[in-house]
Amino acid sequence: MKPVNIGICGLGTVGSGVFNVMQRNRAEINARAGHDIRVTHVGARRDNPACDLSQVIVERDVLNVAKAPDVDVVVELIGGCDIAKTLVLEAINHGKHVITANKALIALHGNEIFQAASEKNVGVYYEAAVAGGIPVIKAIREGLAANSIQWVAGIINGTGNYILSEMRDHGRSFEDALADAQALGYAEADPSFDVDGIDACHKLAILASLAFAIPLQFDKAFIEGIRHVETQDVENAEELGYRIKHLGIAKRVDSGVELRVHPTLVPDKRLLANVDGVMNAVLIQADAVGPTLYYGPGAGSEPTASSVIADIVDLVRVMDVEPHLRVPSLAFHPGLLKEDQIVEQSDIETANYLRLQVIDELGVMSAITQILSGKGINIQAMMQKEPKEGESTVSLIILTNKVKESSLQAAISEIEELRAVEGKVTQIRMESLN
Amino acid sequence: MKPVNIGICGLGTVGSGVFNVMQRNRAEINARAGHDIRVTHVGARRDNPACDLSQVIVERDVLNVAKAPDVDVVVELIGGCDIAKTLVLEAINHGKHVITANKALIALHGNEIFQAASEKNVGVYYEAAVAGGIPVIKAIREGLAANSIQWVAGIINGTGNYILSEMRDHGRSFEDALADAQALGYAEADPSFDVDGIDACHKLAILASLAFAIPLQFDKAFIEGIRHVETQDVENAEELGYRIKHLGIAKRVDSGVELRVHPTLVPDKRLLANVDGVMNAVLIQADAVGPTLYYGPGAGSEPTASSVIADIVDLVRVMDVEPHLRVPSLAFHPGLLKEDQIVEQSDIETANYLRLQVIDELGVMSAITQILSGKGINIQAMMQKEPKEGESTVSLIILTNKVKESSLQAAISEIEELRAVEGKVTQIRMESLN
Repeated sequence: MKPVNIGICGLGTVGSGVFNVMQRNRAEINARAGHDIRVTHVGARRDNPACDLSQVIVERDVLNVAKAPDVDVVVELIGGCDIAKTLVLEAINHGKHVITANKALIALHGNEIFQAASEKNVGVYYEAAVAGGIPVIKAIREGLAANSIQWVAGIINGTGNYILSEMRDHGRSFEDALADAQALGYAEADPSFDVDGIDACHKLAILASLAFAIPLQFDKAFIEGIRHVETQDVENAEELGYRIKHLGIAKRVDSGVELRVHPTLVPDKRLLANVDGVMNAVLIQADAVGPTLYYGPGAGSEPTASSVIADIVDLVRVMDVEPHLRVPSLAFHPGLLKEDQIVEQSDIETANYLRLQVIDELGVMSAITQILSGKGINIQAMMQKEPKEGESTVSLIILTNKVKESSLQAAISEIEELRAVEGKVTQIRMESLN
Repeated sequence: MKPVNIGICGLGTVGSGVFNVMQRNRAEINARAGHDIRVTHVGARRDNPACDLSQVIVERDVLNVAKAPDVDVVVELIGGCDIAKTLVLEAINHGKHVITANKALIALHGNEIFQAASEKNVGVYYEAAVAGGIPVIKAIREGLAANSIQWVAGIINGTGNYILSEMRDHGRSFEDALADAQALGYAEADPSFDVDGIDACHKLAILASLAFAIPLQFDKAFIEGIRHVETQDVENAEELGYRIKHLGIAKRVDSGVELRVHPTLVPDKRLLANVDGVMNAVLIQADAVGPTLYYGPGAGSEPTASSVIADIVDLVRVMDVEPHLRVPSLAFHPGLLKEDQIVEQSDIETANYLRLQVIDELGVMSAITQILSGKGINIQAMMQKEPKEGESTVSLIILTNKVKESSLQAAISEIEELRAVEGKVTQIRMESLN
């Protein structure tokens, strides 16, 4: 059988992982694939000392890999949306199949890329773009093909999960835990992509499309990061039988699809609540199978390489078949995607954890509960924390029942105007995940 | 495109689930598959009131479905190895593709069935045979194709996991929990298949072949059930920071492949230790990705149907392609399977939990520890439980370091001969799962 030639573009953390795992496990990979798969080209501005490039053609201009006549599959591991996008479209244009680990590229430009690939009859695979080494795209797109999916909830940013785990396990502040994550290489110098939820939302947008047959709609998602979560919130949650996780949630409801990333109180018995450190996990609720969960490393050189190479093996099997026999890029055959509306955040209903700093005096509680009940908000639990040494105010924790976001926001505004309430109300949404 | 005709044989719990989910989610399934997939034939001794069979051809003799010229795919959901095996081989012989949820059939006769399928160029798919609705065969066979797999450890029998969960959560005895499982329909009147580990071992044999490129070798596995696990063992484990789970473990070691099913103490922080009730989970350690875990319902009508239908969708895509482009039945292309030896249980090394009933007198401890150290067995922890009201003996709990099974068995024999030791020593193996 004709060997399959792979061109790897980008030789950083992930690129070098793909290159080296392909070499180390070549015999086993080929025994599974039934083809001789070989890396013949590498496109990289500079060599990587971790990789022995003596047997491959090295291009300093990655676009040359996209144009090389004997390359069958271009693997884009550059990151970002500039050169990466140009490279992917150029490769497609030259009739190459494409594999990428680039979540931003797929989330932001996937609709355009899949359209181009469809016109050129080539495949674009991107398992590594969501939850790193966990084969969760395959699970949704193929393993759960029988199901009407109801919701997806995932810990899909390892940095954020590391920070929240550290805050819980060691009572550390957000800032401390973040500094630690940076020192360990889990977080970038500018951590906003991770801790502000952008990265998680890229992945969520992809998961939602695969689950609900909708086009990629990153820009319509609600995104809230974890900077405002304080150690006391983590401790309060624990005391109430919950853990705080930064979740990406996509849910089909009557009015459309909810698409939201935010810190979330999750009952501590849930498996998802017990996913700690940099690990990722995605929980999927579907009508036939019920709940299934997929857990593993969400980033890193070889975990990401594992998914990239799985895509290569999949692609090798369908390179020469009729395109309609391939698994569709967004799980559903084009033309069958629905234009389901993304629900406005103000219309979303969740239970909530609220923390307020109040002056401990007669009538405060009654004023607060009156405001809540005036908006039709039921209180599920209420807890007052003793004032800390030297503080004159007490923390008041309120758990609400399920309530429409707009009603809650209106209530919060009124509460914040009370004389006895200091500063802002901290709101963290809750999900029962069952 | 030509519609694909499915014949479902067996209309019990799983068969009716497949029939009904195929109807309910038909539009979505077809939008994913890109084909019109329809159930045209049903083979069943009697109708099932849960299914409206007015639109299908019903055969009382399932072999007629295997022979029907317009059936493309035969779905075997009869169970057992008699009629089911005849049906599957007959279907293959008539050039039909086959899907089955039958773990015993695959574990015991898979080598023969795959050989027959290979000669006739048809596919045999069986995702539902392991861990019910969890797409774990797909994960190993495709999602982890880049990896050299090191070990697999799974909770792959829901009945056993339900019993152990009940013993822990409610302090119930094995017998009580079993009776409850039977009342709830989780366990058969004769529960031996589940609680003695046979069912788990069928699934383990399959997982091991997929992971390690070895032929199916159910008969060489070590199997130990959970009947001897007592409530006090569950409680002792808890006190020591462990949980007892009935695990199927397949591990590649220098001398071959370990294949064993037994109750196991697992550190309580591990995600696998937190999988409760009838749920299943499989943890896989692989060289590139590291650990990944797959969780979900291991049985039931629609969860199992979910996997059967996923197989149908997969199969529909590769029905008409060259057979070598299909994912191989046992993950590796035939001819590339290795004849790795299954390691004798006496040669396996694990840490162990031991519980002995001893007369509380001077010199007993020293005699026991001398026997252990004489066999080169190191003690990791030791704990004496106060005698219960009216009992003259005390329970002694010993955790050993990793030790060869044959050395431990020799030590246990000597210990049981001590005058001060009453009855048998309870041994439960331990796994750190990291």
